[in-house]
Amino acid sequence: MTVVGFIGLGIMGRPMAVNLVKAGFDVIGYSRRPESAGDLVAAGGRAAGSIAEVAAAAEVVVLMVPDSPDVEQVVLGADGLLAHARAGQLLIDMSTVTPQTETAVAKAAAAKGVRTLDAPVSGGEKGAIDGTLSIMVGGAAEDFATARPVFEAVGKTIEHVGPTGAGQIVKAANQLLVGGIIELVSEALLLVEASGVDPDAAVRVLAGGLAGNRVLDLKAANMLARQFQPGFRIDLHHKDLGIVLAAARDAGLSLPVTAVVAQLFVAARAQGLGSLDHSGLLKVVEGLSSTR
Amino acid sequence: MTVVGFIGLGIMGRPMAVNLVKAGFDVIGYSRRPESAGDLVAAGGRAAGSIAEVAAAAEVVVLMVPDSPDVEQVVLGADGLLAHARAGQLLIDMSTVTPQTETAVAKAAAAKGVRTLDAPVSGGEKGAIDGTLSIMVGGAAEDFATARPVFEAVGKTIEHVGPTGAGQIVKAANQLLVGGIIELVSEALLLVEASGVDPDAAVRVLAGGLAGNRVLDLKAANMLARQFQPGFRIDLHHKDLGIVLAAARDAGLSLPVTAVVAQLFVAARAQGLGSLDHSGLLKVVEGLSSTR
Amino acid sequence: MTVVGFIGLGIMGRPMAVNLVKAGFDVIGYSRRPESAGDLVAAGGRAAGSIAEVAAAAEVVVLMVPDSPDVEQVVLGADGLLAHARAGQLLIDMSTVTPQTETAVAKAAAAKGVRTLDAPVSGGEKGAIDGTLSIMVGGAAEDFATARPVFEAVGKTIEHVGPTGAGQIVKAANQLLVGGIIELVSEALLLVEASGVDPDAAVRVLAGGLAGNRVLDLKAANMLARQFQPGFRIDLHHKDLGIVLAAARDAGLSLPVTAVVAQLFVAARAQGLGSLDHSGLLKVVEGLSSTR
Amino acid sequence: MTVVGFIGLGIMGRPMAVNLVKAGFDVIGYSRRPESAGDLVAAGGRAAGSIAEVAAAAEVVVLMVPDSPDVEQVVLGADGLLAHARAGQLLIDMSTVTPQTETAVAKAAAAKGVRTLDAPVSGGEKGAIDGTLSIMVGGAAEDFATARPVFEAVGKTIEHVGPTGAGQIVKAANQLLVGGIIELVSEALLLVEASGVDPDAAVRVLAGGLAGNRVLDLKAANMLARQFQPGFRIDLHHKDLGIVLAAARDAGLSLPVTAVVAQLFVAARAQGLGSLDHSGLLKVVEGLSSTR
Repeated sequence: MTVVGFIGLGIMGRPMAVNLVKAGFDVIGYSRRPESAGDLVAAGGRAAGSIAEVAAAAEVVVLMVPDSPDVEQVVLGADGLLAHARAGQLLIDMSTVTPQTETAVAKAAAAKGVRTLDAPVSGGEKGAIDGTLSIMVGGAAEDFATARPVFEAVGKTIEHVGPTGAGQIVKAANQLLVGGIIELVSEALLLVEASGVDPDAAVRVLAGGLAGNRVLDLKAANMLARQFQPGFRIDLHHKDLGIVLAAARDAGLSLPVTAVVAQLFVAARAQGLGSLDHSGLLKVVEGLSSTR
Repeated sequence: MTVVGFIGLGIMGRPMAVNLVKAGFDVIGYSRRPESAGDLVAAGGRAAGSIAEVAAAAEVVVLMVPDSPDVEQVVLGADGLLAHARAGQLLIDMSTVTPQTETAVAKAAAAKGVRTLDAPVSGGEKGAIDGTLSIMVGGAAEDFATARPVFEAVGKTIEHVGPTGAGQIVKAANQLLVGGIIELVSEALLLVEASGVDPDAAVRVLAGGLAGNRVLDLKAANMLARQFQPGFRIDLHHKDLGIVLAAARDAGLSLPVTAVVAQLFVAARAQGLGSLDHSGLLKVVEGLSSTR
Repeated sequence: MTVVGFIGLGIMGRPMAVNLVKAGFDVIGYSRRPESAGDLVAAGGRAAGSIAEVAAAAEVVVLMVPDSPDVEQVVLGADGLLAHARAGQLLIDMSTVTPQTETAVAKAAAAKGVRTLDAPVSGGEKGAIDGTLSIMVGGAAEDFATARPVFEAVGKTIEHVGPTGAGQIVKAANQLLVGGIIELVSEALLLVEASGVDPDAAVRVLAGGLAGNRVLDLKAANMLARQFQPGFRIDLHHKDLGIVLAAARDAGLSLPVTAVVAQLFVAARAQGLGSLDHSGLLKVVEGLSSTR
Repeated sequence: MTVVGFIGLGIMGRPMAVNLVKAGFDVIGYSRRPESAGDLVAAGGRAAGSIAEVAAAAEVVVLMVPDSPDVEQVVLGADGLLAHARAGQLLIDMSTVTPQTETAVAKAAAAKGVRTLDAPVSGGEKGAIDGTLSIMVGGAAEDFATARPVFEAVGKTIEHVGPTGAGQIVKAANQLLVGGIIELVSEALLLVEASGVDPDAAVRVLAGGLAGNRVLDLKAANMLARQFQPGFRIDLHHKDLGIVLAAARDAGLSLPVTAVVAQLFVAARAQGLGSLDHSGLLKVVEGLSSTR
């Protein structure tokens, strides 16, 4: 039975680790906050007291942490994974971070004989619980083959999209699309509301044609009701759009519309909406045309 | 058997008129170019030699013409529909025009006892042929009820969205979404291509999550292949975004992202791409980051 | 002594008409509101009771009215200028309207043997009172020569910029620049304020270099103090940006930044700021990043 | 006679160092490329062989290097300024870098008893040669007083704008304004050119009113002639707009128009225009509306 280490047992990591146990893996999890391991242990997994303990026990180690500095600390830090790693181990970073972070991690890992994949996900807490995440994987084909059983335990749509960093690029493209479509749906709904149209009927007919999209299907009703319980927080989408624009800048690519969308996310945070679901961007667009 | 007049037998109108015949209506069609009536006659319909002839014969008259001035000429012109109309007739405008045009038409029609609906469609030539158009209808509920059999002969998703003009507002929202999503998909595909990622794999995984949308499903493969056969022409989408921004301006609504998208459609026409499918907008975004 | 008719005695027109009297012209003015002629009469001019009276008396007629429909009514209306005009008269439209309006006016006037110039101005109420307006003139060179003494009585910078409509194009370019620079100055001042910098010192040093501009010189202090007494109203600048974008659309020209600025002016009106000075746009930008 | 060290003898630094000699300072300069010190030595200054030599000799050290990493290396590097500094020395960074760089430098310097100012400049090569730079200074008031004679030798408009980092914030605001105004002037000139207007006459009349600005005065003629010899390179302005948007993001400030301008600079570089003068941005805007 493969031993899978799992570092980062937050809203996403916890149910993913549990799904790995259910799929038959021997999972040893670590979180900075020990109480976060409760669900994993209850499901039949083990709780580690340190990163070193995970490194000692696991053949494959999965990371699911918030941001690039977290990945760097966990992997490259003084008492981090690579300080305790063995040649032949496989490190799968499922966090959403910059492609540069993954390149740096891969280089440092290779020097120790450790292989790496970047494998960020889409699908949110619900996808993590249901084991239906979309997974976009960058790295070597043979490592992707090795990791496939792990991915199948937590995801449904699983694609090897290119070399190291490619997973993060596709995740960036994903966040570009989702953020932008939220903005467009906001503009469309506000136009409909401002014009005395029945918005529910409008959403039904819009969903049936070329304008149809998942944001409209899953979020329009809540947007019309001005209910923005997270969900995926504006703060995180703001961080992700920073990654998008930096990646585009590095690639020499001008993204005029995404740049405007990113500024509206900056506005959302400045308006104190950072902890709302990203569909709460509608409030920024609405505020633009409302008396105070 | 209800007699349905049909004015405008172009790419959209022709198959719609034929579908009405197939559904059992007695259809009498008129086009400025008499040869356009060939399909209709072959299917068992009749060709009229003038608008007056249509007005004399039909209980319900459907319009499917390119732009607001065409509607005004056909309906309000010296030898137009209202000049020959009878009280109790129902006029259904399925063209995409401004809400103001529909209000003006409705007012002039009411003075003659003629009822009106605005009922623009989404779904393109394919939807017109297959009889699967989405139809967004503005007008009185009882007129919508009267017209339902006509709509069911040509469409699948059929919604009464509000009073006169409401159909055009929802169509505007539809074009806002489609145009904007085409732009976002362009930006996302270019990011992926510029970064050495497998674009086909990227499209598969993007389509599986919250970023999923109909443009990605139906057009991304052609966009990656740089094939932009129409389809729905950039020239027409440009016209429609003019309607969107004018409607928003009238409603006192600021649409920052749609405004940028509209300028990119202006650029597309200026670059000589007006007759390409609207997904050809990708070439404008690509050109922005390419040496000449 | 040349007889100059003057139609439109509002905030701009009144002092311009007075300056014409001071320069030695025999001025006969008309306003829809008779009481508006008080200043003109006090200065030695005459008040007309109708447009027909102006047309009968004047060799040159100046128009200074709010918008395109006003120009059309005054010139082309049933009892308008052209209904009473004589061949050889010169009509100078100093209003800010669309180039199309001027083309239509010129065509109708030519049919009566009446010559026309479009000659919109920049400089505001202060420039009108001081006789220091900038005047951008479209039309024939010989008509410009004829009108020069009139222009010199009310303006300082006077340029013949091209054929009929050219004056309005340059005025559009002027409003594009002023609106956009107000937005940029707003963004710059907010950046400085948000960062704990001394804004007055910042304005002094910014004004001294390549960033220097008239908006910074004349309006930055009031913008920092959040004082937005008109001045030139947001409502009017909003109207003018509509002219700019329509002219660009006609010319096949994509203006991405102006389009965003125009949407911020739409927002300003929607936020109830329409009667503030156009520098009040700062409040929209500020609101974008403020909790409510 | 005060000994002034000068590190960075490029296009800007060389004439500045020479002007310090002319003003009576004993200047000891260092450049990575020793041949760069030729002008300084010819003017009566001294050439140092290492940063350590500068640190040993000088009471005040001026930095004029390209970017944040250069500042960090020169100041914080193993053999950098602080490794050799003495308590009481004053370090003046006149480079354009992030406010964060200046904060980090100031903190490290303070630990050694070294005082710092950030003092970026505006005015370009011409201002450096003529000694007429605008200088925006962040840091303690007493250090500003100490440095004033140095600033007066190289600049004309000299302002203490706030604490450490404030100088860089104001420089960021300067680049926001200059980059944005270049874009607006491009849009305005293209509108005028596309409409058959005399562009030289248009520029004259625009310059005379509220639209007047330094970019129009100094660059419009070259822009109309499509001559874009540097000047200040697009590559550098691109870098600076990165600083602007990062500073705004840190300050929680949404800058919608600057964000679009920044994407157009990204496009300019991608189009191979990076070494043109920043007014070459016009070519990007022009290309947007031109057939290829």
